[in-house]
Amino acid sequence: MKKSIAAVGLDVGGTNLKCALIDIKGKILSVRCKQTQAACGRRRVLHNIKTLIRELLEVSGRTPQSVLGIGVGTPGYILNGRVQGSPNMPGWAGAPIERELRRKFGTPCFAANDVTLAALGEFKFGAGKGLNNVVCYAIGTGIGGGLVLNGELYEGTRGMAGELGHVTVEPGGRKCSCGRRGCLEAYASATGMTAITRELLKKSNNRHSAIYRTVKGDLEQITPKIIYGCAKAGDRLANRINGMVCKYLAVAAGGVINSLSPDMVILGGGVMAAGKIILDKVRKFLPAYTLREPRENCRLAAAKLGEHAGVIGCGALVFRKLGPRRAIPR
Amino acid sequence: MKKSIAAVGLDVGGTNLKCALIDIKGKILSVRCKQTQAACGRRRVLHNIKTLIRELLEVSGRTPQSVLGIGVGTPGYILNGRVQGSPNMPGWAGAPIERELRRKFGTPCFAANDVTLAALGEFKFGAGKGLNNVVCYAIGTGIGGGLVLNGELYEGTRGMAGELGHVTVEPGGRKCSCGRRGCLEAYASATGMTAITRELLKKSNNRHSAIYRTVKGDLEQITPKIIYGCAKAGDRLANRINGMVCKYLAVAAGGVINSLSPDMVILGGGVMAAGKIILDKVRKFLPAYTLREPRENCRLAAAKLGEHAGVIGCGALVFRKLGPRRAIPR
Repeated sequence: MKKSIAAVGLDVGGTNLKCALIDIKGKILSVRCKQTQAACGRRRVLHNIKTLIRELLEVSGRTPQSVLGIGVGTPGYILNGRVQGSPNMPGWAGAPIERELRRKFGTPCFAANDVTLAALGEFKFGAGKGLNNVVCYAIGTGIGGGLVLNGELYEGTRGMAGELGHVTVEPGGRKCSCGRRGCLEAYASATGMTAITRELLKKSNNRHSAIYRTVKGDLEQITPKIIYGCAKAGDRLANRINGMVCKYLAVAAGGVINSLSPDMVILGGGVMAAGKIILDKVRKFLPAYTLREPRENCRLAAAKLGEHAGVIGCGALVFRKLGPRRAIPR
Repeated sequence: MKKSIAAVGLDVGGTNLKCALIDIKGKILSVRCKQTQAACGRRRVLHNIKTLIRELLEVSGRTPQSVLGIGVGTPGYILNGRVQGSPNMPGWAGAPIERELRRKFGTPCFAANDVTLAALGEFKFGAGKGLNNVVCYAIGTGIGGGLVLNGELYEGTRGMAGELGHVTVEPGGRKCSCGRRGCLEAYASATGMTAITRELLKKSNNRHSAIYRTVKGDLEQITPKIIYGCAKAGDRLANRINGMVCKYLAVAAGGVINSLSPDMVILGGGVMAAGKIILDKVRKFLPAYTLREPRENCRLAAAKLGEHAGVIGCGALVFRKLGPRRAIPR
């Protein structure tokens, strides 16, 4: 039986590796996960990646030659197929990911930043389908970003574009994990918003908040899920926190809209499980931080591919690099 | 005698039209100016443009057929050769600039935003020569911006990219001419910094400043030139104002560097006549607002083409649109 055209997508996370077989329409045909074991160093991570890809091919009944190629999304700055630097996965820097996988499997391999590829996934198969200029925020533990401009992946000089979480939204403001002050990430990431919530709940006059009752006073248990659950139930403190998060998201996205005038700004990542309550509030704040014309020509939307944006984007990278004419299974 | 390859560049300003014959190396062969008469409406402006181009061709001993084409840089948002909107030149919106000049002169015509084209000029023939990703600030009465990304003019959706002056640098801050608060333009433009200086000099304890003595107490006479003259002479208030201007330039440029990781950020426009005193201070502030990696891979530089960046960029647009193979004079 002739196999359909497909590529292997591999998303490298700090905790887990996720590998999927993606067809040319962005559909996941099969998927498999494994621990990254980042702390064991890059040789172990590369070994785990190779094992996982081999396993995926086996369960899918494929040979490496019957897929178009392998796309890899990884944290850090990627240049010429090599991880140049990786602030959040220290042992990983220097990994010659493209070369290693090309040698091992004898099939084309392409690597890029993980959030940049999630943006490509949303652009090609998700919320940004059919558009030309799309900017994505991935709002999770930290905040990452990815850009597709003039219909092409925009990686910037030396693969470092898209650090949208470290754009200053409040000069001299809260301390960020990067050591600077007033970054978007310090306010609107899971880490930022839970830290702010804990500080507010340490003041006794906020103890009547539903957040405090939900975690039974154990402030370490606070998560964005709890904050947004309470916000939707009408809790005042939780809504105040959402207001702060969304104000700074609007300052940051507003800067992007004024500078780049994209067709769409996509908000994704774990925190966006809260959905509409964030989107609506950011939309309400945007007019204060953007000129009318670029704002009216830009949609603000939630990501559509959810947790799969990464691997789907990895597949999209392969289809894009090899082009439609070469997209024929061997 | 065979004429050298050249294009006509036309820079539309709110006050003056500037027209130049540009050779393929970005050199100005001849130049001619005329009042825009923007207040008389777009038919009059179009008439003045046509007259000026005809005059330039005459003094240069050229026919319209012996130039490669006409490039036009104009304020506002340009889409499909038409001025879609022009916040700073109201009567100008709707002008079908490309069509009108193509009809009149029978030669190719291309139009784009004036600051975007100044960026293209610096990218092709000025400070950004040989680079791939360049972002320009034009700091004058207001603040405009232009972007060249992946080696191409980046105009965004519907030609609206580059509103770098209206990026929020201080949420809830000073009122801007656009009606919003905390825009870069409200602090770092000529208008912004002179307004702030006037406010500071209204307080009697600042009256010992050299700025106050220079304008003999007539605060309406304050210009960036006077402020920077005093700053260079060591005046404390003037240096405090420069510190504020450069801090906000660093917040804004820092956001651009984190988001786009360009090879170079270019500061141009009238205010940059002050030169090094601004560049040095912005460089000093940048580490507080950017991640190390994209910052270390990005140079901050002053524009090189000065007031000619606009017309030279108009010429560059023609060379770019028609490509090297078609760059043969007829």
